[in-house]
Amino acid sequence: MERELAGLAEALPDGRLVTGAASLEAYRRDRAGLSTAGVPLAAVRARTVADVSAALAWAHERRVPVVPRGAGTGLSGGADTPDGALVVSLADMTAIREIDPADQVAVVEAGVVNAEVSRAAAEFGLFYPPDPSSFEISTIGGNLATNAGGLRCVKYGVTRDSVLGLEAVLADGRVLRTGGRTVKGVAGYDLTRLLVGSEGTLGVITSAVLRLRPRPRGGPATFAAEFPTLEAAGAAVSGIVRVARPSLLELLDNMSINLVEDHARMDLDRAAEALVLGQADGPNAAEELAAMVAVCRDAGAASVVETDDPADAELMLGARRKHYEACEARGVPLVDDVAVPRSRIAEMLREIDRVGRESGLLVSTVGHAGDGNLHPTFILRRDAVAEEEPRAWAAAEEICRVALSMGGTVTGEHGVGALKREWVREELGGVGLEVHRAVKAALDPRGILNPGKAF
Amino acid sequence: MERELAGLAEALPDGRLVTGAASLEAYRRDRAGLSTAGVPLAAVRARTVADVSAALAWAHERRVPVVPRGAGTGLSGGADTPDGALVVSLADMTAIREIDPADQVAVVEAGVVNAEVSRAAAEFGLFYPPDPSSFEISTIGGNLATNAGGLRCVKYGVTRDSVLGLEAVLADGRVLRTGGRTVKGVAGYDLTRLLVGSEGTLGVITSAVLRLRPRPRGGPATFAAEFPTLEAAGAAVSGIVRVARPSLLELLDNMSINLVEDHARMDLDRAAEALVLGQADGPNAAEELAAMVAVCRDAGAASVVETDDPADAELMLGARRKHYEACEARGVPLVDDVAVPRSRIAEMLREIDRVGRESGLLVSTVGHAGDGNLHPTFILRRDAVAEEEPRAWAAAEEICRVALSMGGTVTGEHGVGALKREWVREELGGVGLEVHRAVKAALDPRGILNPGKAF
Repeated sequence: MERELAGLAEALPDGRLVTGAASLEAYRRDRAGLSTAGVPLAAVRARTVADVSAALAWAHERRVPVVPRGAGTGLSGGADTPDGALVVSLADMTAIREIDPADQVAVVEAGVVNAEVSRAAAEFGLFYPPDPSSFEISTIGGNLATNAGGLRCVKYGVTRDSVLGLEAVLADGRVLRTGGRTVKGVAGYDLTRLLVGSEGTLGVITSAVLRLRPRPRGGPATFAAEFPTLEAAGAAVSGIVRVARPSLLELLDNMSINLVEDHARMDLDRAAEALVLGQADGPNAAEELAAMVAVCRDAGAASVVETDDPADAELMLGARRKHYEACEARGVPLVDDVAVPRSRIAEMLREIDRVGRESGLLVSTVGHAGDGNLHPTFILRRDAVAEEEPRAWAAAEEICRVALSMGGTVTGEHGVGALKREWVREELGGVGLEVHRAVKAALDPRGILNPGKAF
Repeated sequence: MERELAGLAEALPDGRLVTGAASLEAYRRDRAGLSTAGVPLAAVRARTVADVSAALAWAHERRVPVVPRGAGTGLSGGADTPDGALVVSLADMTAIREIDPADQVAVVEAGVVNAEVSRAAAEFGLFYPPDPSSFEISTIGGNLATNAGGLRCVKYGVTRDSVLGLEAVLADGRVLRTGGRTVKGVAGYDLTRLLVGSEGTLGVITSAVLRLRPRPRGGPATFAAEFPTLEAAGAAVSGIVRVARPSLLELLDNMSINLVEDHARMDLDRAAEALVLGQADGPNAAEELAAMVAVCRDAGAASVVETDDPADAELMLGARRKHYEACEARGVPLVDDVAVPRSRIAEMLREIDRVGRESGLLVSTVGHAGDGNLHPTFILRRDAVAEEEPRAWAAAEEICRVALSMGGTVTGEHGVGALKREWVREELGGVGLEVHRAVKAALDPRGILNPGKAF
């Protein structure tokens, strides 16, 4: 293989091929709590679609597995490498080729960090809505590959809803272009959305036409409400999405409140069963806030704080944003990611609580409540990770099964990756799985693209 | 084949199989202006997914082509039958199985007429946003198969954006279920959106979980603006989508204004080059209307009329709604359907005008201007259809090519059907077409599902 790698090096411009175990350590895995990553053969730091194409053609000919990679911030092991794989990193494809204010689109390469798109669009009064929590560090390519969600999705939709067209390299190196820059179009199959969320198993996305939106004029108007029961919080969430269009609607359970309070002293009520954070934007933000606050009070909120000051709002949202680091301060977090129909949030939170207690582990749950998307987070004791890990995964599996029994999904936004393959099969069903395999075989007959991931 | 049909009849409950040339006449084609439909072998009026499954298993075994069919209101020949095809009609699958106000979803069978969904949802304060002009006669199954657009799409998105999950029968009769009833979910490939817009070539959609939305509180607030030039109207449209979120933004060109005025006497200005109709809904409708009207005046509107009275609004929108019948009053309309980036609407309208003049035919253009989606409509003289038809198609082809050269699409919302196959190939490109063929072969290896359509 050494000799053949020389052939790949020749097919690429100087400096694009990374070899050697020490250098490759940074390309082995993503940020999932658990990993079974092996040792890659080499990595290609692509700068052009031609680089990606050359790498895939080389790998295809030799049946070498290929793992596409953005910033490696995934939480499901989607970028974990099997032994002997060729990693194709898009992290150096960072050009924002175009911001078009008239058509409200951005044309960006896959390695552009999510937050950079909105920063570039800001001068035209536009923004890119999808904002996974990783938005300052994750790339658009990774966001597209996983159909990333985020806080604003409750109003503005997920990544899928903000993409108009793609450029992607197929398994054998051919370059596919899908969609375009019109907001409507029904020519042919929706290959754009077939690739979005396919976790690198059908092609390697190299650039995208993204849809931008005008920045909301007015707001944000923000509230934080503490609830004495999960049922009351769940009722508030359900009520809010019926009377308003929140631009953010998050929930923290009692354990999360206490962890954040331990970590950051925010004067949260440690006895509250749930903290709900909501925000409205746009010219009608104040009225929407009033409507949301009224729903919270009707649902039995013990306290509601509201503000139209952006700095105060950021302080309030800090409770949510600091959750992960509060978990890390306590132990090793393993983040799960289920979604249920919105009407069943309270019930799902109760079930997570039950499963957590039965497991004997520390479980802290936050979530994008307005979307029914919850992140139960197991926090393993640093001195007992090896002992607690299997119990955490058994508990996570039970949580996934409960979500499925409620008509939910085993992954709301993080993706299946390497970690949830067994569970997703139950969700997809026998025929669903057969169709997945048929589509995969049609686009990647040699099975080289991110094997062992997604389904 | 007669004997084998008897076998199919036995596999179905009584009365579901339609045979005989006279009875089958109603199943031969859709409403496209031109048709090359043949004579079907038989039609199945399915009432259950089991009926569809039995029909497809039968056809698959015998390699009989299958044409799925809703209400037959399509405009691209997507439901035209080749000789000897089995038509599978979903028109009798009309159950609205569920309206769930808490989860804001409707579970409906494919034969439910679009407007019925919103009517059923209304008692819960909800509605189903996608509203093709055919919404009172077209079915959800057909809307899904073509990813139908409509007037409200400029604010609420197309059919694709309002579907959470599907039940569909595959070519060999297997039943596939995709998606679910959560608003978020990234488990596996987006088979839901692969089927949406696939025009019956990958499977037969039998039911769907649709996303409902709360009915806007407030509005509609409506305006009609007449413009002395297409450029001014185009500038107004571009400006409006930057400062407001119209719930409808339509345009009629000078010929359309005159045809409507001939037909219905609405006191429109026959000298105006364009009429733009816009509407805002929601609690902020009045402010949004004011912003839209200001943009129109700044762009040089010769007159602007506004109203917050729903009845007056319907009168104003009548100019748009009566367009098709005004065309029919004049001759035989052939409706084209291109979309361009929104910044190029004025330019596209000029090009349509040029092509129309060079063709010597009557061309009247209306469109969902806020989406860049235009419907140039050729109106053939009743006594010269045979002579004018080829010229109309040549002109339509040129219009499609111009749209492509502007980064547009040959079909914004009507679908490719039988009529636009040659043109869509140019849009999809060589690799795109290869991928389409691979996906088709993976899901329908015998090629029985709606052959000769979509790409």
